[in-house]
Amino acid sequence: MEPMTEKYVIGVDIGGTNLVVGVIPAEGGEPVALRSAATRGQRGPAAVVSDVGTMANAVISETLQRTGASQEQVVGIGIGCPGSIDLKAGVVLTAPNLGWSNYPMRDHISEQLGLPATLDNDANCATYGEWWQGAGRGAGVLSGVTLGTGIGAGLIVDGRIIHGASGSAGEIGHTTIDFTGRRCACGNYGCLEAYASGPNIAARAREGLEAGYKSLLVKLVDGDLDQITAITVYDALVQGDDYAHEVMLETAKILGAGIANLVNTFNPEIVVIVGGVTRSGDHLFGPLRSEVRRRAFKSAVDACQIVPGELTQKAGVIGAAGIFVATCEMDQ
Amino acid sequence: MEPMTEKYVIGVDIGGTNLVVGVIPAEGGEPVALRSAATRGQRGPAAVVSDVGTMANAVISETLQRTGASQEQVVGIGIGCPGSIDLKAGVVLTAPNLGWSNYPMRDHISEQLGLPATLDNDANCATYGEWWQGAGRGAGVLSGVTLGTGIGAGLIVDGRIIHGASGSAGEIGHTTIDFTGRRCACGNYGCLEAYASGPNIAARAREGLEAGYKSLLVKLVDGDLDQITAITVYDALVQGDDYAHEVMLETAKILGAGIANLVNTFNPEIVVIVGGVTRSGDHLFGPLRSEVRRRAFKSAVDACQIVPGELTQKAGVIGAAGIFVATCEMDQ
Repeated sequence: MEPMTEKYVIGVDIGGTNLVVGVIPAEGGEPVALRSAATRGQRGPAAVVSDVGTMANAVISETLQRTGASQEQVVGIGIGCPGSIDLKAGVVLTAPNLGWSNYPMRDHISEQLGLPATLDNDANCATYGEWWQGAGRGAGVLSGVTLGTGIGAGLIVDGRIIHGASGSAGEIGHTTIDFTGRRCACGNYGCLEAYASGPNIAARAREGLEAGYKSLLVKLVDGDLDQITAITVYDALVQGDDYAHEVMLETAKILGAGIANLVNTFNPEIVVIVGGVTRSGDHLFGPLRSEVRRRAFKSAVDACQIVPGELTQKAGVIGAAGIFVATCEMDQ
Repeated sequence: MEPMTEKYVIGVDIGGTNLVVGVIPAEGGEPVALRSAATRGQRGPAAVVSDVGTMANAVISETLQRTGASQEQVVGIGIGCPGSIDLKAGVVLTAPNLGWSNYPMRDHISEQLGLPATLDNDANCATYGEWWQGAGRGAGVLSGVTLGTGIGAGLIVDGRIIHGASGSAGEIGHTTIDFTGRRCACGNYGCLEAYASGPNIAARAREGLEAGYKSLLVKLVDGDLDQITAITVYDALVQGDDYAHEVMLETAKILGAGIANLVNTFNPEIVVIVGGVTRSGDHLFGPLRSEVRRRAFKSAVDACQIVPGELTQKAGVIGAAGIFVATCEMDQ
């Protein structure tokens, strides 16, 4: 195996909201250069590929300047994208949050930059990042859970991502926690995501207010309840609002049921939770851990830590780059 | 690697109700000899180990007689036992359905017979059996689901069982499908097993009758509702009873929600369902498949077959023996 020392890999994290591109040392470590921009996915995938090209060239230039490395030391691109992915073909089959389908993302970005590329699901990338360089470093059996516009998970055993039969392993956002419950955007009832995704935390908060609960939240959005987001709920919570506290507690219990299911099914030694909601810290993690303990198998709970990610917004780019590195090593 | 041809392995399946011991060709195939007896676990694990010894000697004799093989060609023992297992130590940590805890089952059976042994969870054994010799032969990503006194699952990727951090991966019986739902024996609320295990199918049927539903079931048990079992419900169903049909339909929908969660989380190419309930055939599999399709990710459902096991009561012994063979091959 050729040593990867002093080689660099471009990490690309295409999110529903933000597009992040960075250069990561192939042997691991912090990004040498990093750019972030709005994805604006409604322009279509080709416009985003063009943005990726521009941003990648900028971070490459910055890296060469800063490290004295040559262009040849940048050896490839790891890409993460939400939705269902055909891993072998490098195609985004459907990305509902972006409105894309059947787009050969890997090859278009590869051609744009003249470098080999890999493509994987964004939750897998964030999970791999936390396993490679973050809170789950070196764990034998790890699960990452991404909380955001959607809820996803990645599963890693002995350093390898479990992709499943069609690349959709870890879709815990659409696991049922209440089979007669709340309708989800996917058409199903009682999905975890129908309660605990960012937009649905906000929706549940709004519903309570419309039903007459009193809360600081109303003032925080100047009475325009449509402006409530998961972040507003968190802001009201830290200002001591009882109702916001109740919404967060319920969120933690629901997430706890979903994560207990993951713990019982997959028995990970660590669950790393990634995404903006983790800023709620112990307001979220305290009741969440209690609920998992209450619901999951004792031997599985005793063997499992539940922790926030360490890489924050960089988990996706670092993990995408790490997957490229691992794929090269496997091919050699 | 030494060829395993003309070698034989003893498979031991310690069930909550039945104890099955057989001799399996190490290269796979039907048991050459097989014995089954009541487990009577309340006598304690040592009495069961003694029974295993007696039964194993009987099936070994029968095998030698029938095949002309010598004693030396019987090379080891694969054991399956319900509950949580310390795989490395070969210890049954807790087996609630048998009332055992912290028992070094593997070494006691190994000493009893003077042969090396492996110990794994019963659901993993049945799953491995169906992968090795049954309905899931050669599948890359397979899940087995055992329906009986309890509900369990086994997960296999590339021929290897996913055990998780503490050997309890696949405990889907205690995954939550209704977080405010029915109380489970485990103390939690809304577990899959609280609705769809054999005893809980019977309990739900009884509850409806107590609430006034009319059914042939009452006659089948001479009015003694405590005698209702999942088998009685099935018997009433095949005799055209509407209420039994309704109970089975509800069971199928609930199992569908649980299996959809497994499909979304693990994305198997095949789910093999094992256990007595599978005798309900299309009465169960029809609505179950519909419910999984309704609830799970389209790409995951499209990639997944849901089928009954082919090995019926032999899945456990065949799988336990297969795990012994695979462990030897890995060690070489």
